[in-house]
Amino acid sequence: MAATAPFPAGATLADVGEFGLIAELTRLFEQGEQVLVGPGDDAAVLRVRTGHVVVSTDLMVEGRHFRRDWASAEDVGHRAAAQNLSDINAMGGRATSLTVGLAAPAELEAQWALDFARGFAEECALVGASVVGGDVTRADQVVIAVTVLGACTVAPVLRSGARPGDVLALQGRQGWAAGGLAVLGRGFRSPRVLVEAYRRPTPPYDAGLVAAEAGATSMIDVSDGLLAEAGHLAGASGVRIDVRRGAFEVAEPLHAVGAALGADPLGFILGGGDDHALLATFDPADVPAGWAVVGEVLEAAEETIGTVTVDGSAYEGPTGWTHF
Amino acid sequence: MAATAPFPAGATLADVGEFGLIAELTRLFEQGEQVLVGPGDDAAVLRVRTGHVVVSTDLMVEGRHFRRDWASAEDVGHRAAAQNLSDINAMGGRATSLTVGLAAPAELEAQWALDFARGFAEECALVGASVVGGDVTRADQVVIAVTVLGACTVAPVLRSGARPGDVLALQGRQGWAAGGLAVLGRGFRSPRVLVEAYRRPTPPYDAGLVAAEAGATSMIDVSDGLLAEAGHLAGASGVRIDVRRGAFEVAEPLHAVGAALGADPLGFILGGGDDHALLATFDPADVPAGWAVVGEVLEAAEETIGTVTVDGSAYEGPTGWTHF
Repeated sequence: MAATAPFPAGATLADVGEFGLIAELTRLFEQGEQVLVGPGDDAAVLRVRTGHVVVSTDLMVEGRHFRRDWASAEDVGHRAAAQNLSDINAMGGRATSLTVGLAAPAELEAQWALDFARGFAEECALVGASVVGGDVTRADQVVIAVTVLGACTVAPVLRSGARPGDVLALQGRQGWAAGGLAVLGRGFRSPRVLVEAYRRPTPPYDAGLVAAEAGATSMIDVSDGLLAEAGHLAGASGVRIDVRRGAFEVAEPLHAVGAALGADPLGFILGGGDDHALLATFDPADVPAGWAVVGEVLEAAEETIGTVTVDGSAYEGPTGWTHF
Repeated sequence: MAATAPFPAGATLADVGEFGLIAELTRLFEQGEQVLVGPGDDAAVLRVRTGHVVVSTDLMVEGRHFRRDWASAEDVGHRAAAQNLSDINAMGGRATSLTVGLAAPAELEAQWALDFARGFAEECALVGASVVGGDVTRADQVVIAVTVLGACTVAPVLRSGARPGDVLALQGRQGWAAGGLAVLGRGFRSPRVLVEAYRRPTPPYDAGLVAAEAGATSMIDVSDGLLAEAGHLAGASGVRIDVRRGAFEVAEPLHAVGAALGADPLGFILGGGDDHALLATFDPADVPAGWAVVGEVLEAAEETIGTVTVDGSAYEGPTGWTHF
């Protein structure tokens, strides 16, 4: 998609108005063949060939999930889409359609909204999904609400199927976004590769289906912290999980930022989210190529269901992110 | 559903935490037989028997779309659901499933969120729809993001099919919510029936399908003002519409509030939204019982496409609500 500049420089949302904004946003969203009725009516109408639809929704709030001085509008668009597309990936499915709601101050530059939408649409195009509807309204801070619809060609992989004897495996970059966030939080801009990983995560969009086809017994995407997500798998499955510290390869940029900030780089990997890597459990014989085995699923007593240990012991660092 | 009080009196969202809140919210949401996987995984999985899904999304922002001192949490829940269910009604369809995102200050009483969710679920139950997923996070003000999925048993009715010679018809209470809002805006609480109409709209959920089956050529729900919505039909259809002032029955409470506030009660009807009445166009022979003919569809010259007149003249009052 070409860059668009349909509004005068500096024009705000109040200047261009709701309908002016919607008209330009809609032009950015190309509609796939699954879209029978696209944006502009009371509702969109989508073709469903699979007999089911997979649906998930997420909110992103300015100052909490993103900062406009830390990432461009286009980056925020990419991230907002990626985080939702990843939820379908984590079911072993493929996203087809998204809706996006944008609440924003009237003083926001209209160009920010367009750049956000362009980044959002570009990320969706990576998996062939279309933006089929949305809403814009005024609020004190920017709030982005995304709903994603998708489909599975094999049975969806839930969080609840992990069994003692399974292994825990990871696919995709993990800890990079957390490293980038730590860097930005100190006012730095390098290592650039980590900052970029935070601004535009690159979820392994093909890995979810591969895992499902390989017989993954449970799966989740790492949005809020690896140990926290492992805990969700363990809790839903009625088991516990032990993670092996030595199983993680610590990439060079994470070593660099750990040294610079005086932090254990493994902390970014175990406690970090936002890369949208996939975490899944498999029978040891079923682990697909490219997945790293990082732990094992263990039988739990009533009081240890849902717990996650690291090399057999409780982990002392932060395990993840909570929203209140 | 019984009232729930699982949290200590006065407990805030920060006190109960994200997972404590989600656990209680989820308990409120009964799952219909169309739900294969409900809340609690990366995504919900829904059975689709019709080969398509109809989807719409809406945002509601505290201070803009609702005030916590003007309506109870339960009322806000009813309204948030109603406004979205109504979008599917306006396609001639039936809602099956919804997701709801709640962004709120950490200081918000947890009970507010529960009461909101109960009202929301009660409204959804009126049409047999289930709340299948959601998200909660922290923000400076309450923002509610709803996405609704549904299905049509006949072809969806779009905004774009009105033809010269059709009549414009209305089904459902119209202007009552606007009257109630005007009353609340002056610090009054009566006529109570109007205040209640604002707090809990009662959309004609069965009328959309009836209209579709009768052959409605275009349809929309009145959320932002009757004349504005008529303009959307006219614009999408490439026609113009004339509305007849004398066609509207002005209910007694609207006369009362008009007299009290020194306003023309017809202004609430022509400019008001929020009741989620349905506005549709039909061949004059096709208008179903219970629909009031309130105008006619006329051929438009290029420059009058999308315009709406009242008794042949431009209307001087407010025609609807805009979001920036």
